[in-house]
Amino acid sequence: MPRPTTLAIVLAAGEGTRMKSAVPKVLHRVGGRTLIGHVMSTLAAAGADAVAVVVGPDRADVAAEVRRFAPAAEVFEQRERLGTAHAVLAARSAIARGYDRILVVFGDTPLVRRETMTGLAEAAGDAAVAVLGFRPRDPAGYGRLVMRGGALVAIREEKDASADEKAIGLCNAGLMALGGATALSLLERIGNDNAKREFYLTDVVSLAVSSGLKTATLEADEEDVLGVNDRAQLAAAEAVFQDRARAAALAGGVTLVAPETVFFAADTVLGRDVVVEPFVVFGPGVTVGDGTVIKAFAHLNGFEKGKVGTVAVGEEVELGPFARLRAGAAIGNAAHIGNFVEVKASDVGEGAKVNHLTYIGDASVGAGSNVGAGTITCNYDGYGKYRTEIGPGAFIGSNSSLVAPVRIGAGAYVGSGSVVTADVPDGALAVGRGRQVNKDGWADEFRRTKGKG
Amino acid sequence: MPRPTTLAIVLAAGEGTRMKSAVPKVLHRVGGRTLIGHVMSTLAAAGADAVAVVVGPDRADVAAEVRRFAPAAEVFEQRERLGTAHAVLAARSAIARGYDRILVVFGDTPLVRRETMTGLAEAAGDAAVAVLGFRPRDPAGYGRLVMRGGALVAIREEKDASADEKAIGLCNAGLMALGGATALSLLERIGNDNAKREFYLTDVVSLAVSSGLKTATLEADEEDVLGVNDRAQLAAAEAVFQDRARAAALAGGVTLVAPETVFFAADTVLGRDVVVEPFVVFGPGVTVGDGTVIKAFAHLNGFEKGKVGTVAVGEEVELGPFARLRAGAAIGNAAHIGNFVEVKASDVGEGAKVNHLTYIGDASVGAGSNVGAGTITCNYDGYGKYRTEIGPGAFIGSNSSLVAPVRIGAGAYVGSGSVVTADVPDGALAVGRGRQVNKDGWADEFRRTKGKG
Amino acid sequence: MPRPTTLAIVLAAGEGTRMKSAVPKVLHRVGGRTLIGHVMSTLAAAGADAVAVVVGPDRADVAAEVRRFAPAAEVFEQRERLGTAHAVLAARSAIARGYDRILVVFGDTPLVRRETMTGLAEAAGDAAVAVLGFRPRDPAGYGRLVMRGGALVAIREEKDASADEKAIGLCNAGLMALGGATALSLLERIGNDNAKREFYLTDVVSLAVSSGLKTATLEADEEDVLGVNDRAQLAAAEAVFQDRARAAALAGGVTLVAPETVFFAADTVLGRDVVVEPFVVFGPGVTVGDGTVIKAFAHLNGFEKGKVGTVAVGEEVELGPFARLRAGAAIGNAAHIGNFVEVKASDVGEGAKVNHLTYIGDASVGAGSNVGAGTITCNYDGYGKYRTEIGPGAFIGSNSSLVAPVRIGAGAYVGSGSVVTADVPDGALAVGRGRQVNKDGWADEFRRTKGKG
Repeated sequence: MPRPTTLAIVLAAGEGTRMKSAVPKVLHRVGGRTLIGHVMSTLAAAGADAVAVVVGPDRADVAAEVRRFAPAAEVFEQRERLGTAHAVLAARSAIARGYDRILVVFGDTPLVRRETMTGLAEAAGDAAVAVLGFRPRDPAGYGRLVMRGGALVAIREEKDASADEKAIGLCNAGLMALGGATALSLLERIGNDNAKREFYLTDVVSLAVSSGLKTATLEADEEDVLGVNDRAQLAAAEAVFQDRARAAALAGGVTLVAPETVFFAADTVLGRDVVVEPFVVFGPGVTVGDGTVIKAFAHLNGFEKGKVGTVAVGEEVELGPFARLRAGAAIGNAAHIGNFVEVKASDVGEGAKVNHLTYIGDASVGAGSNVGAGTITCNYDGYGKYRTEIGPGAFIGSNSSLVAPVRIGAGAYVGSGSVVTADVPDGALAVGRGRQVNKDGWADEFRRTKGKG
Repeated sequence: MPRPTTLAIVLAAGEGTRMKSAVPKVLHRVGGRTLIGHVMSTLAAAGADAVAVVVGPDRADVAAEVRRFAPAAEVFEQRERLGTAHAVLAARSAIARGYDRILVVFGDTPLVRRETMTGLAEAAGDAAVAVLGFRPRDPAGYGRLVMRGGALVAIREEKDASADEKAIGLCNAGLMALGGATALSLLERIGNDNAKREFYLTDVVSLAVSSGLKTATLEADEEDVLGVNDRAQLAAAEAVFQDRARAAALAGGVTLVAPETVFFAADTVLGRDVVVEPFVVFGPGVTVGDGTVIKAFAHLNGFEKGKVGTVAVGEEVELGPFARLRAGAAIGNAAHIGNFVEVKASDVGEGAKVNHLTYIGDASVGAGSNVGAGTITCNYDGYGKYRTEIGPGAFIGSNSSLVAPVRIGAGAYVGSGSVVTADVPDGALAVGRGRQVNKDGWADEFRRTKGKG
Repeated sequence: MPRPTTLAIVLAAGEGTRMKSAVPKVLHRVGGRTLIGHVMSTLAAAGADAVAVVVGPDRADVAAEVRRFAPAAEVFEQRERLGTAHAVLAARSAIARGYDRILVVFGDTPLVRRETMTGLAEAAGDAAVAVLGFRPRDPAGYGRLVMRGGALVAIREEKDASADEKAIGLCNAGLMALGGATALSLLERIGNDNAKREFYLTDVVSLAVSSGLKTATLEADEEDVLGVNDRAQLAAAEAVFQDRARAAALAGGVTLVAPETVFFAADTVLGRDVVVEPFVVFGPGVTVGDGTVIKAFAHLNGFEKGKVGTVAVGEEVELGPFARLRAGAAIGNAAHIGNFVEVKASDVGEGAKVNHLTYIGDASVGAGSNVGAGTITCNYDGYGKYRTEIGPGAFIGSNSSLVAPVRIGAGAYVGSGSVVTADVPDGALAVGRGRQVNKDGWADEFRRTKGKG
């Protein structure tokens, strides 16, 4: 018997007016990833055979974000907003291709677990309709799952519910799976004979029941089905995401001195015995090797100008406090990146030290080299970016300016306060600074003229 | 019928010994504003016709702070601390001028809402005494509001309360309003026949009742009437303040990735679609335009040397991480202020970029200009502060020192590592740095002499 | 009657596999101090007469950490892990010396209070066995303290407990004290007739009871006896430690604007009226004088390369935001240390100002001097560290490099952007920088060649 096939339909056409934002709701972010990005990632992990995404009119931005995660996804446009069933039917051509199961999920519900998605799809294996339920702390306002003889018979909206039905704790989470054989016929029978003249997907339950078809339910935790409709819910979703990420890091053998002060991205990877002090932010694209210590006030983020680059930190590295690693930073094992240091698009070699007040951009810093406090790689001339190469074992004196393109040779030495504009041979010294002149008594005189001598 | 007039009396004479502080209690701060500053602001918003503040002996500092918020406020001194009624009567001359209502509030209770103040004053419109109540989680220690037939008949202190009275959940929040017609006569009849020989304002209730006068009550939330008596309560008040501010920001269309890590001042204004990453602190005086992104570890604060200046951030600005904006910073639309950058008393023009390890003080940075990493405006000579002007479209090479007073012309270019002491004409290049000399083999030899070659 | 003597035995031989760490469990840290360091400190404060620590095989690292806190402690090795009683008996030779009381504590239980340790030892004054109990929110999994007639008769493991016994709320915290007279004989009678063939210390209770000896119990709070077995419990212990430290700071007259964002070390000392803004981390070795303000994003840490040095901040200092003080930093009264400033192994004199983007290492900065933005003490030549001396009242122009060893005289003046390689006499001016040259029209021409003129 072949594996049953699943089409996932992602509803992402909501206007999200309560977000009060110029950005479409599903492009807001949790853990550095868009809401719809979370849903697409989870669907991929769940092994959906095909994904159809229903977006609002003229939402090329949403379509582009969908394709970033799932190049093969089909994007359908819902031109008018006539309800959830109407939205699902925007993907009619995909449904009509005949999948075994149709899984309907929401672009603004980013925290649904993979197991929940697969479980719900499987529940539609022998049921015409499978509905995801949850038990909210406060059920007021949610549709209730009305069960009879252990089977779901209807989803009752709060306003239509009897007192008995209001006492039901199990509520509709929105997600649903339909058996492929009857999905389209059921969907097309949903009417809009209601106050708002909308086609509600929830009506599919009673239609199935009245047709003598089987229904099923699956239960999820409230936090898994948290939907994002305003900024407070966005923050709440972020909090759930972070709690999960922190617990996973701790379970994996990472020390988080104060877990509640560490913020992860959806793809952060930390090795064993990594120690993270309070107040650390991981943006997308970061991996950190075993035994590395990340001191307080560090910001590691591979995301720049809309793209996720990588920040790769080796093993036994000392990082921070007050360190910033940007896209393209690759820090070798046992290197030290100290305070008020920024590294961008640069390799820092094994055991190299860049400890204070330094900007390393578009550079390679050789293994075992030492970059003094206040060093700046001058990588930009207003038009192009140029590279700085620092050889292994080199010593860059403090407060130097390395004007790219420039190469400091292996084992070379740059005198403090130098401006280096030409290559420095291996093993050579470069000095480029003014000669000191002392003027005796000048400061005393200056103070006298200021009347404070 | 003319609008009724209200005199607000602010009691601010408490010693605050439990604060263990050299600073008077009401000058401690919540949301960057003194406790009494909060009370004065709320009274102004509530439309009090006159404000009298009762301070302790020789508290010119408190009086000055009062006048900062309400130049017209009268300040009275309570020379001896003989109880709350005695404190109110320090303002006898103001009361005697004949207002319709006398509202009594406390300088150490900063979170009372405007609506509560107006509501309480109005309640004294047809009652001789209106008392603010609240229902604390744990009523132990609070005075109970004893009601009979729906009317307040006494405030019973915990120690004098019967078992039945102790079961009362509604407690005295301290705030009170008196009908103007009977206020003075009631206050003057309060005695000090008690263990501490103090004149208690709470006795006004039973005096009113025994005189056949009407009383009223109003209820507030516990957190609204949180009083500050020690540092833990100060922190608790700050927490309530911040929760309110965060909720207001979210409701207004601001993304706070982690609301609990963002700290607002009482006057912070953020535009729509502003995104605030974790770990951001707003001091007083800050406004931020629509669509601006404030990355982690940013500190924006207009408060300096006891005065509130302004920090004005435009629209679509990118700020941080690790950015500090101080009083007088004005950042133009679409400008970038990057990491380890401090801006003070300076205008940064539209689209200008100041991205790394830079100090911009007493300067103007022209639109579209680029200030390289490590640039320092040298604005101070030990006596005076001088200005740096950077023209539009200028390019300041990295690690440059701009020695003020100095002007870099429009479109001019400063070579990396330069010390600029003289003006640079429009469109010119300025270079001021030592010439590089390489000494071949020097570093190898140096290492040999150190015995590590 | 002489004071009774106490031998404390610290069990620290557990493998800690659930930590998933290459570091032994008791060397993980809470409040900047190792778990076993906390236990050793508390035992010292409790006045234990002798301390024996039982460690796992070949744990020289644990032994060294023990001796750092208690040079006189005896360290015993438990070669095989045959249960807690077996571990205690690894210290048989110490027990046999004949103390009045034997106190058994755990190296992975860092938060037990001094009073609990002394109380438990005292309880073994007239009882053969005294057991520390606690009432966990969820007792499942803990051994229950079975009492009869008010006296402890057994510790019943969960799996052996009857339904009635499972209903007991008082659970075994692990800590125990034994009367010295019977300790050894009781311990030696403990058998290993159980599923795991281990010798369980808890069996001592029923042995004592069956011998007609007295038992006693003492109760502790759940958070006091929190044991650390995995990273989540380590984080939980840290949270309890921090809550205690924050409450103590508040009670002592310190303002913590947001207590939950301030992290203390076990030995942090803050004076009265210190104000700590959000997001501040104290590592070990820090003392701060009265009235000092520590602004947001500060990192003060005397711990470096495995040793605790000191960071001493005077009174009325202004620190931060974004300041880092490292081992050996001593900041004089009324000094200012500003943003993006690092101070290491340096004295900063009274009233001196180091306000922006500066590295002060191995230096002394004279009273009343001013160190300009971007100043770097160049203290390292790749082999040794050298000192910079800045005299009182000196003025260091911005972006200067002070190449150590070097002395800037009292009242001397260094021009902005100078590289100072030779001593500057008192009252003199030193300038060491390139001369500025302007090239008219160069930038315009440059732009033309780039095609963007």
